[in-house]
Amino acid sequence: MDNNINDYSADFPILDQQVNDERLVYLDNAATAQRPRQVIKALTNFYEQDNANVHRGVHTLAERATKDYEDARKKVQEFINAPTANEIIFTKGCTDSLNLVASTYGEQNIMPGDEIVISIMEHHSNLIPWQQLAKRKNATLKYIELTADGELDLADAKRKITDKTKIVAVTHASNVMGTITPLKELATIAHQHGAVIVGDGAQAVPHMPVDVQNLDVDFYAFSGHKMMSPMGIGVLYGKAELLRAMSPYQFGGEMINDVHREQSTWADIPFKFEAGTQNIAGAVGLGAAIDYLSNIGMEKVQQKEQQLINYVLPRLVVIPDVQVYGPQSPAKHTGVIAFNIKGLHPHDVATALDMDGVAVRAGHHCAQPLMEDLGVTATARASFYFYNTKEDADQLIKAIKETKEFFNIGTI
Amino acid sequence: MDNNINDYSADFPILDQQVNDERLVYLDNAATAQRPRQVIKALTNFYEQDNANVHRGVHTLAERATKDYEDARKKVQEFINAPTANEIIFTKGCTDSLNLVASTYGEQNIMPGDEIVISIMEHHSNLIPWQQLAKRKNATLKYIELTADGELDLADAKRKITDKTKIVAVTHASNVMGTITPLKELATIAHQHGAVIVGDGAQAVPHMPVDVQNLDVDFYAFSGHKMMSPMGIGVLYGKAELLRAMSPYQFGGEMINDVHREQSTWADIPFKFEAGTQNIAGAVGLGAAIDYLSNIGMEKVQQKEQQLINYVLPRLVVIPDVQVYGPQSPAKHTGVIAFNIKGLHPHDVATALDMDGVAVRAGHHCAQPLMEDLGVTATARASFYFYNTKEDADQLIKAIKETKEFFNIGTI
Repeated sequence: MDNNINDYSADFPILDQQVNDERLVYLDNAATAQRPRQVIKALTNFYEQDNANVHRGVHTLAERATKDYEDARKKVQEFINAPTANEIIFTKGCTDSLNLVASTYGEQNIMPGDEIVISIMEHHSNLIPWQQLAKRKNATLKYIELTADGELDLADAKRKITDKTKIVAVTHASNVMGTITPLKELATIAHQHGAVIVGDGAQAVPHMPVDVQNLDVDFYAFSGHKMMSPMGIGVLYGKAELLRAMSPYQFGGEMINDVHREQSTWADIPFKFEAGTQNIAGAVGLGAAIDYLSNIGMEKVQQKEQQLINYVLPRLVVIPDVQVYGPQSPAKHTGVIAFNIKGLHPHDVATALDMDGVAVRAGHHCAQPLMEDLGVTATARASFYFYNTKEDADQLIKAIKETKEFFNIGTI
Repeated sequence: MDNNINDYSADFPILDQQVNDERLVYLDNAATAQRPRQVIKALTNFYEQDNANVHRGVHTLAERATKDYEDARKKVQEFINAPTANEIIFTKGCTDSLNLVASTYGEQNIMPGDEIVISIMEHHSNLIPWQQLAKRKNATLKYIELTADGELDLADAKRKITDKTKIVAVTHASNVMGTITPLKELATIAHQHGAVIVGDGAQAVPHMPVDVQNLDVDFYAFSGHKMMSPMGIGVLYGKAELLRAMSPYQFGGEMINDVHREQSTWADIPFKFEAGTQNIAGAVGLGAAIDYLSNIGMEKVQQKEQQLINYVLPRLVVIPDVQVYGPQSPAKHTGVIAFNIKGLHPHDVATALDMDGVAVRAGHHCAQPLMEDLGVTATARASFYFYNTKEDADQLIKAIKETKEFFNIGTI
C-alpha cells in the first residue's frame, strides 16, 4: 500500500479503544460510519451556541440557526452538484427519502399495468416501497439480474426497461457486495423509455464523487450517518419540476402556505417536504462531514478505499474455504466485501472476529432477495472507509485465519 | 417567587452568552428547548465510545449501541407510564408520529361519512393530517371550539363527538396560549362513542407529569427536542392491539420479517414502524434528557413553571396596550404566553425584544385557524421552561415596556 496516503484515524475518538483486549478495527462502515471530532465539535457548538428553531423566528439565535441550516443545504447541493439548493430536501435518512418518492411520485404516477424496474441487489429500503406500490396499483415489479461476476447486467436492464416502465429505482453501489452500478447508463435507458430514475446513493455518496447532473438521475437519496454526520438526517435530491408536481408527504408546520379550517395550500420546495421541526443540528453536522470529506477530496477518499481493497481482496480470496461474493476486481468495488467461510455460520464468524477486536457485520444485510440469488441466507461483511488502515486489513486477515483455526476448518 | 426553587440555568452552556450586548433570555422554549451539558455529554459519549448500527450486528459496539437504544426506549416507557416498551415507537418527531397515525390507522379505519373531531387550537401538525385524511375519505372534520377564556369547551366537545366519530385528535397543551386541555375527559367521551383518541403531547410531556394509562389515550405523540433531547427524535405511544393491527408506515430495513421478490412480511411492534437506521444517538440523548427531568421530578418542573407564570402573568396584563390571549389563570397554563402590543406588529415586538436580549417568537405559531379564531394574524409568544429565572421574567417585562417606549405607544 502507498504510504503517502494520510492516516486519518487519529481524528476519530472512538477508534482509540480496545475491544476484548484487542485494538478495535471497525469494519462495519456500510452499516454506519464513525464521526471525526470535527463533526462532533460542530454538533456540540450548535447546541452550545446557536440552537433554536429555524425560519419562523426573528430573534438572534433563530436567525443564526436558520443560517446554519440553510448553509448546510447549500453544502449538500455543491457536494452532489445539484443545480439549485431548493432541490435538496432534508429527510430522516435514505429510507425516509425513498419512501417519500414512492408515496408521492409513485402514488401519483403509477397506474395499473405500469412497470417498475429495480435490481436484484437492492437494499430492502429501495425494494419494499416499490414492491408494495406495485401491489397497491396492480403494477408489475421487474428485477434486473446480476452477471456471473456479481455486477448489474446492463443487457438485462435493456430487456427489462420498456415503454411500460414508469420508474427505474437502482442502487448506485451494493451494500452487500460493494458493486458499483452503471447508474448513468441506466438513466439514459430509462429516459429513452420515458421513465424516471431513482438512485439509491446510501453506499455511494460517502465513498466516491457523485454528480447528480452528470448522472442525470431524477431522484437521488442518501443518508448522513453513513458519511459521518449525526444520525437522523438524510437527503433527497429531486429535479425541481418533479418535486413541484408532487403532493406533500407529511403535513404539519413549515410546509404550508395557508391553513384554514377546511383547506390548506402548500409552500414551495424544499419546505413543502419538510413538515415539522427538522433535525437542524443533524443538518449542521452533515455540513461539517461534507467539509471534512471535501477537504480530503472525494477522489482521494475513493482512491484510499481502492488501495485498501487492492490490498485485502487478493489476501482474502487465497485463504482456503473463504468465499467472496461479488466482483473480484477492486476497480468495480467500494470498500465493501461480503464473504463466508465454508462450514461456519457468518454470525459465528462475526463473533469470533469480534474476539480479535474486528467489527464486521453478519446477516442478510437487508437484502434477502439478493441472498436468495446468491444461494445463501447470510454472509459476513467487512466494510472499509478511508480512515481504515493497512494494519486494519492485516488484523482482519489474521483474525479470519485464527477463526478458521479456532473452529478447526480445513487447512490454515 | 420562591427562592428555594433551584436555579438550573448553569447546566445550559448556551444561556451563558450575550445577545446584542444584553444577557440572553431564552423564552422560545415552545419552539425548541435548550440542552443541558448532561444531554450533550451523553450524545458525545455515544459517538466517541459506542456508536454503531443496532440489532443486526453481533460485534461489541453494535451490542452496546443496541443496549443503549433499547434502554432509551424503556426510559420513555417509564416516563409516560406506558404498559410495555414495545408500545414506544421512535420517530423523527411529533409531526412524524401524528402523520404516521393518520396515514396508517386513519387510512385503514376512516370511511366516507365518518367524522374526525379535533380542536380549533391544534398545531398544524395535528390538524392538516386529519383535514387531508377527511378530504381523501369523504369524511367530515369537526372542530371543538374555545370558551371565552381560551379553554377547550368541553360542552362543545360533548356535542361534536358522536357515534359517527371515529377519531378524536386533540392537543394536551396549546402551543400558542399554554392552555392545558381535559384530555382524560375527552378520552372518556371518545371511548363512549367507540372512537379512538390521539393526544398531541408536544407541549405537555416536557412540562408536566404525563401518564398515558391514566389518560387512557389510544395514541400519544411528542417530540424530543422540546424536552432537551437532540433534534430528530420523537415518540409515538400506541396501544399494542391498535399498533399490531396497523399497516407499516414506511418500508425498509429492520421492519421486516421476510422479504421475497414478490412479497414481504413484517416484524412485530415496535420494529414494524422503525424502517431504516433510526436516530440511535438521538434516542440515547432523549434518555439522558429524561434522566435529567426525572432527577428533578416532573411535579417540580411543573411547579417551577407555574411559579414563573404566577410571577410574570399579573405583571404583563397590567401593562397598558398589552393583550394576553388564552387563560389568565396560571393553574390552567403551561409556561407559554401569547400576547400582542396594540398598534405594533408582533414581528416588530420580537425584533425589539431581541435588542434587549430577550428571545421570543412571533407569527402564527403553526396555528392559523386559531389565529383566525382569535381575530389576529399573528402574536408574540414568550415560552418559559423550568431553567428560566425570575431575572428572565423581569428582563421580559422591562423589555416590553422599553419596546412600547421605543415605538412611542400609549402610556408607559
